[in-house]
Amino acid sequence: MSFVPNGDFASVGSASGTNHRPNRLGIVDGPQSSAAGNPDEIAKLFPSLFGQPSAILVPTDSDSGLPDKKLKIGVVLSGGQAPGGHNVISGIFDYLQDRAKGSILYGFRGGPAGIMKCKYTELNSDYIYPYRNQGGFDMIASGRDKIETPEQFKQAEETALKLDLDGLVVIGGDDSNTNACLLAEYFRSKNLKSQVLGCPKTIDGDLKCKEVPTSFGFDTACKIYAEMIGNVMIDARSTGKYYHFVRLMGRAASHITLECALQTHPNITIVGEEVAAKKLTLKNVTDYIVDVICKRSELGYNYGVILIPEGLIDFIPEVQQLIAELNEILAHDTVDEGGIWKKKLTDQSLCLFDFLPQAIQEQLMLERDPHGNVQVAKIETEKMLIQMAETELEKRKQEGAYKGQFKGQSHFFGYEGRCGLPTNFDATYCYALGYAAGALLHCGRTGLISSVGNLGAPVEAWTVGGTPLTSLMDVERRHGKFKPVIKKAMVELEGGPFKKFASLRDEWALKNRYISPGPIQFSGPGSDAISHTLVLELGAQA
Amino acid sequence: MSFVPNGDFASVGSASGTNHRPNRLGIVDGPQSSAAGNPDEIAKLFPSLFGQPSAILVPTDSDSGLPDKKLKIGVVLSGGQAPGGHNVISGIFDYLQDRAKGSILYGFRGGPAGIMKCKYTELNSDYIYPYRNQGGFDMIASGRDKIETPEQFKQAEETALKLDLDGLVVIGGDDSNTNACLLAEYFRSKNLKSQVLGCPKTIDGDLKCKEVPTSFGFDTACKIYAEMIGNVMIDARSTGKYYHFVRLMGRAASHITLECALQTHPNITIVGEEVAAKKLTLKNVTDYIVDVICKRSELGYNYGVILIPEGLIDFIPEVQQLIAELNEILAHDTVDEGGIWKKKLTDQSLCLFDFLPQAIQEQLMLERDPHGNVQVAKIETEKMLIQMAETELEKRKQEGAYKGQFKGQSHFFGYEGRCGLPTNFDATYCYALGYAAGALLHCGRTGLISSVGNLGAPVEAWTVGGTPLTSLMDVERRHGKFKPVIKKAMVELEGGPFKKFASLRDEWALKNRYISPGPIQFSGPGSDAISHTLVLELGAQA
Repeated sequence: MSFVPNGDFASVGSASGTNHRPNRLGIVDGPQSSAAGNPDEIAKLFPSLFGQPSAILVPTDSDSGLPDKKLKIGVVLSGGQAPGGHNVISGIFDYLQDRAKGSILYGFRGGPAGIMKCKYTELNSDYIYPYRNQGGFDMIASGRDKIETPEQFKQAEETALKLDLDGLVVIGGDDSNTNACLLAEYFRSKNLKSQVLGCPKTIDGDLKCKEVPTSFGFDTACKIYAEMIGNVMIDARSTGKYYHFVRLMGRAASHITLECALQTHPNITIVGEEVAAKKLTLKNVTDYIVDVICKRSELGYNYGVILIPEGLIDFIPEVQQLIAELNEILAHDTVDEGGIWKKKLTDQSLCLFDFLPQAIQEQLMLERDPHGNVQVAKIETEKMLIQMAETELEKRKQEGAYKGQFKGQSHFFGYEGRCGLPTNFDATYCYALGYAAGALLHCGRTGLISSVGNLGAPVEAWTVGGTPLTSLMDVERRHGKFKPVIKKAMVELEGGPFKKFASLRDEWALKNRYISPGPIQFSGPGSDAISHTLVLELGAQA
Repeated sequence: MSFVPNGDFASVGSASGTNHRPNRLGIVDGPQSSAAGNPDEIAKLFPSLFGQPSAILVPTDSDSGLPDKKLKIGVVLSGGQAPGGHNVISGIFDYLQDRAKGSILYGFRGGPAGIMKCKYTELNSDYIYPYRNQGGFDMIASGRDKIETPEQFKQAEETALKLDLDGLVVIGGDDSNTNACLLAEYFRSKNLKSQVLGCPKTIDGDLKCKEVPTSFGFDTACKIYAEMIGNVMIDARSTGKYYHFVRLMGRAASHITLECALQTHPNITIVGEEVAAKKLTLKNVTDYIVDVICKRSELGYNYGVILIPEGLIDFIPEVQQLIAELNEILAHDTVDEGGIWKKKLTDQSLCLFDFLPQAIQEQLMLERDPHGNVQVAKIETEKMLIQMAETELEKRKQEGAYKGQFKGQSHFFGYEGRCGLPTNFDATYCYALGYAAGALLHCGRTGLISSVGNLGAPVEAWTVGGTPLTSLMDVERRHGKFKPVIKKAMVELEGGPFKKFASLRDEWALKNRYISPGPIQFSGPGSDAISHTLVLELGAQA
């Protein structure tokens, strides 16, 4: 792969060096902002920041450009990895080199804990060089600690004072960006000069809104998974005897599963948000799968590919209910061999428990976390569905309603997608996010999230700026108090991506419309394509 | 991806169309051949074929070129998928179009069963077009049936007569090529005109010899697995808290695991052939892994990547012994809860059984195939090793010898590598193999395997021809009779690839020398690179 993303990110900054950059940059204010919900409560929680306008970077030839000053900036990677994180840092660094010479960039090590413990590396050209356009977060590592308590805010303040920070860029998901905004408010309330910005990161694709059309990493992760799915599709069609059940990363929302479906056209795709909206039971889901398998068998196809989101179980109300009851029972009672303990389950939960394969029953009973709770995350949903499909198919076979052969193969595509080489899109998008963050800090902004728009157009036409984090927020009531949250963007059943999928899935189910997109390419046709989700969402907005 | 492999396979045939092809091709005989072992027995088994010379295709301007005649050729894909199979077929087809106009190519459907049942598709340009350079075997599908019994040979003969076949190309692994040779001998003995050729296919890389330097599919599969391994390496280093245990396809030999190690530099790599040669026990293997984990922990690294060949268990003598004893005991005795049945195990097997994690013990006792035998293939070795490492590390922690944290993540990279888009190497190599097969049939040869040599050189300098299948053969005594076999090429502990690995593994174990090669590219730097295994083996031969 070449050293630089392909694009010339022309109007603001180019990864390819010095071309096309305007001599001066200016900032134009957008309209005043509000909140995603409950603006009155958000205004109370963020008195210094609420209502501020968004910011748009523009080339300018006038003398109204940004001030000539040196900055001290910190950057931190928060939470799970997403391809492109290193390019955000490169973008910030290059901005400072280009337009605020003599500035210093500190990389806080190991996530937010690095801020609290003041553990950092001063980043320079040589240090950053080998990580440009590379996947992973290993340049400065990441972590899942949060800056939440008054003591932790105090620690962050001490670090900001000690390093004389002008600004801090938090690269993270919904929680991390919420915390970035709280820190921006805290610093402002303490009259500290340190500004705080966020950057939208998560492969899950569930941090997005109108101004922030996608989170980085989603594009790469989906394309890596789609490569693998395409390969097992061709395998399924070549052998003619396997049903591949593929579980895909993405716990809260099913964007990854939906995007991979649009890229590859599997026979069956389960979208968690639809399961929840239609209040489907596990039996409903199994029946849907088995119905398709039976129909395909009649057409002579005893093979297929089925996509399942990692978080499927969390979307099924009856499963949540069963788990809650089990947690309660197992906390207080011993489990007798005879099964008398089962009488404490409600009828619905008992019925579901008996429906589950024995291995899953045992997993629910035996594998508990240190608090004694069922470990839902450890349940291998794809294996569970294979077993349930087997049982149901056996039943139908005995009834004469199914004559095929069924062999399930289970896959979990997860970790291998989080740290891949970023696609051209993610590499360029991240570089733009970082370059924007540098400019926004340079012009004194705080409490914004880097936002790059018009992503459906060529890179030269992308718009770059910042969106007030408070405008993404709503509140949730926890322990009697309002807490600010950036709500996860779920798959919208009325949105472009789902509607396209829904209009095609019956055809994909019975006819084999498989697409095997192959490995991500960095040059040549298709190497700059954006995700189907983004195309369809942008189309819906246009 | 472009329609054609990148190369101009100049001296014989080019995938890119009509360039560089000599006006005429001729055949030069190599020296007479013998067998890989027991030539007297091989001579008895193949009276018509034994000793024939190899054939080398050469460009010629004389009138001694190949005859001007139309051919009827059949082709069959046998066994598991390997990337490039479609290009072998394309190569045969294009040869016939170019140099034996009016010829017909039949694709037998679903593997050798298609020959026996005379189930075929007549292949033409439009039919083949969409499969060129694509992965999988879905053009005509594959199968695992074998032509073995006298009745089956008779069926094959009937098909050959019915279709008036001049030749048949069998694309397969060691067994399939052995059977191709038996069929060639049978047809010759019956005075049928139908010639039979083989083509070396298997991602496992265990079908090779001096004249056949590699089997196709190995290059692509290893590069797909190496992409995934590289990604989890970066993930491991980014989070700093996981040991990824990666099981890789390749049951009989560990070539894939070794090649992936050379491409990515994992901390620990288990090579089955070394385990067998050193007669290591499962405890030895576990201790080796745990020793490295402990040393890394002292250096501050509580993460890493470990590669394990799919067939590991088959290489450990004591495990084979235990399984044999269990099969015997469970066939005749009932298993009592108290464990009295265990007294029937030998001391060594009892000791091993007690050493195994409980889940594996249960798997050994409960999951039996229809014949009542333990299903070794279903044992998830990577999960077993994680559990054994956990137990041993816990023990060492209590002894004060280990202070780290251990979290294992298991992966199996298998099916997703068998049907990927072929690399430029596999695409071009396969096309050459197919083109060669066409030429060899055209000039009346039988009982050869397509062989393309000088693979370390640019494509223009590759040599193309055929090697007598009997020269790859040895015999094995089964049921009192000599059976011909092409012995699987195992990893040679004195060979170039293993020696390079052995000289570096201690450094890889403790220092992090990870390489994340990224997705296979079809253009740009590195896109034409051949495997480390091939480079090192060719170097050793030179």
